[in-house]
Amino acid sequence: MKHRPIRASILTHNLSHNLSVVKKMTNDRPTWAIVKANAYGHGLEPALKAFSQSEGIALLDIGHAALARKLGWSGKILLLEGIFSESDLNEVNALSCDMVVHDEQQLSWFVGWLSQQTPTIKAVFLKQCAIWLKLNSGMNRLGFKSAQYGLSYEIFKNLGCTVNHLTHFANADDSSKSPSVGSQWEIFMKATQYVDGLKSAANSAAVINHTQTHADMTRPGIMLYGASPSGVYQDIAHLGLKAGMNLRSEIIAIQEIQAGDRVGYGSQFEAMKNSRIAVIACGYADGYPRHAPNGTPVWVGKQGNIADGQIAPIVGRVSMDMITVDISAIPDAQIGSPVELWGELLPIDEVATHANTVGYELMCGLASRVDLEIL
Amino acid sequence: MKHRPIRASILTHNLSHNLSVVKKMTNDRPTWAIVKANAYGHGLEPALKAFSQSEGIALLDIGHAALARKLGWSGKILLLEGIFSESDLNEVNALSCDMVVHDEQQLSWFVGWLSQQTPTIKAVFLKQCAIWLKLNSGMNRLGFKSAQYGLSYEIFKNLGCTVNHLTHFANADDSSKSPSVGSQWEIFMKATQYVDGLKSAANSAAVINHTQTHADMTRPGIMLYGASPSGVYQDIAHLGLKAGMNLRSEIIAIQEIQAGDRVGYGSQFEAMKNSRIAVIACGYADGYPRHAPNGTPVWVGKQGNIADGQIAPIVGRVSMDMITVDISAIPDAQIGSPVELWGELLPIDEVATHANTVGYELMCGLASRVDLEIL
Repeated sequence: MKHRPIRASILTHNLSHNLSVVKKMTNDRPTWAIVKANAYGHGLEPALKAFSQSEGIALLDIGHAALARKLGWSGKILLLEGIFSESDLNEVNALSCDMVVHDEQQLSWFVGWLSQQTPTIKAVFLKQCAIWLKLNSGMNRLGFKSAQYGLSYEIFKNLGCTVNHLTHFANADDSSKSPSVGSQWEIFMKATQYVDGLKSAANSAAVINHTQTHADMTRPGIMLYGASPSGVYQDIAHLGLKAGMNLRSEIIAIQEIQAGDRVGYGSQFEAMKNSRIAVIACGYADGYPRHAPNGTPVWVGKQGNIADGQIAPIVGRVSMDMITVDISAIPDAQIGSPVELWGELLPIDEVATHANTVGYELMCGLASRVDLEIL
Repeated sequence: MKHRPIRASILTHNLSHNLSVVKKMTNDRPTWAIVKANAYGHGLEPALKAFSQSEGIALLDIGHAALARKLGWSGKILLLEGIFSESDLNEVNALSCDMVVHDEQQLSWFVGWLSQQTPTIKAVFLKQCAIWLKLNSGMNRLGFKSAQYGLSYEIFKNLGCTVNHLTHFANADDSSKSPSVGSQWEIFMKATQYVDGLKSAANSAAVINHTQTHADMTRPGIMLYGASPSGVYQDIAHLGLKAGMNLRSEIIAIQEIQAGDRVGYGSQFEAMKNSRIAVIACGYADGYPRHAPNGTPVWVGKQGNIADGQIAPIVGRVSMDMITVDISAIPDAQIGSPVELWGELLPIDEVATHANTVGYELMCGLASRVDLEIL
């Protein structure tokens, strides 16, 4: 039983390797391995296995924290957006999570909740669950402004909490933009200069580009999965990161077309000469970007050996379940030939660049109808 | 327990309504309701319920056909891309599916398989499972060329099969493009003029724009889900189609920013005046399009009554888990206020148009981490 031939293989050993690269780049600093969004599409379970050497994992939803505990994760867990209601705190405590607090609403929920707990429960929370106070240092998404930061810190401290500090960079991958990492870092340092606690600021881009921000814990995400924070493969080509996922499928049909013939919806491609067009079982409902224009690379391998292959360009619009590529230059390609949409043979960043997006979106967009194979 | 507040409600009654619109537009012709790609993101189970008045459903993967039978679907099932290997035919037979045959490889698998079956099994197949021979009339994706079509028909007929006929239009939503519906239709009529069997050609765009192609069975997809085949809402505004899905979430934080402040990754938005920015729990890892630029509409409702609301524009880049919108004009909006990303209050086509894509991609791209609520 074969069915539709598209599948994603998760390369657990490559994910582990990428964590070791981060560790080396940061002098073995503790890490929060970012596993939100179902580990950027790679699946929480293989990610936990791959990142067993990380001091902590960071994610969004308490349901996923519960799953991680169920799967045996005994390290730290950080809830990156904290709680979404006061009652979430019961689970934060039960699951021994650290949590971000990013605004007064969350602070107020916490103060209310804590006041209603028995001394025993209160003591357990204060021992097990650290607060990571988030500073808005210029990204203007989540976080307290500097003016409120000190007071928030004092409130948590007076309640007996362990309070750590965290901020997030808007432009760690692009030094031409304002606010710069330098200015955000300065604001973060100033807001936290008189207080205790660990500090964390560096996402993947800052791990790579801004050593001075590595601080007490880094928060690598995209680089753990082998892709570039900037979306440009050349920016990470020297780091030795490896693909976390091979998305592969097969040729399911071949059309011999004549010069002047068009291919696909909207007739976005017109053949300049007689051509051999392969139809591949992969479309935007699998998570392949519909924006990918003519010329986006697809790796086409020989039957039985995908590594022995070459790039073929997409021709015609990506449709829901299929893409079409020009294999005129690959006479060996036939129905059943294996193809790689992205992975070890074709960096996901190269596909993303053609589609005017970033590897993050492609990984996270992998559809549930694509079977995951854990290697 | 509330957790992250994003969820998608599937509006089963609206899906049913949309089918009745199709029926009215096509003089009650039989329909294949297209439910591939997990019913365009709406879930196979609610779709089967909603489309109970359809003569058949059409999808891609035999696994999903098996699920449909398990869920009690007793109508016809069409495998739109046919089989992916010879052994798939055992299941095609067991599940009483009709199947597309689009190339010689599939034909050859079928001939081989049939020759190995017992007379009983053979008889069951020939009685239960019709062949839908697919003609490539100019889209150059799947299908036999006209030159091979007649011979393929004869082979199936000689084996005792019920053979029907099908083709697919490249430009049913755009009369400026070539090949036109007229030219493809002419090629289809010519290839099938001397043969028996039902004919099917009309996708949603042809149901709406090309009455002459309705033939024996139509194949509506996107219009059943309440969106426009062209991606332009105005093209369907007069049809009375209703949204199949409400994607809703909440404001989880609010930032008061100053003129000159920037918002989000890459600082894609700079405030011209002091502004109130809402952070919404929805990002591209939920399936919201990362391409959505500043100005993309989001519906922001009043606490407790989402219908009493108004549009607010996205400001700043869509990030993995959050979007930011300018709510300066909505003083009532606060943390916890409900928002609609697309649905009955804000057509999905309007979001798609801003993001330079089509509603199809948005629906199909809904991430598995978003809970579905079936209404």
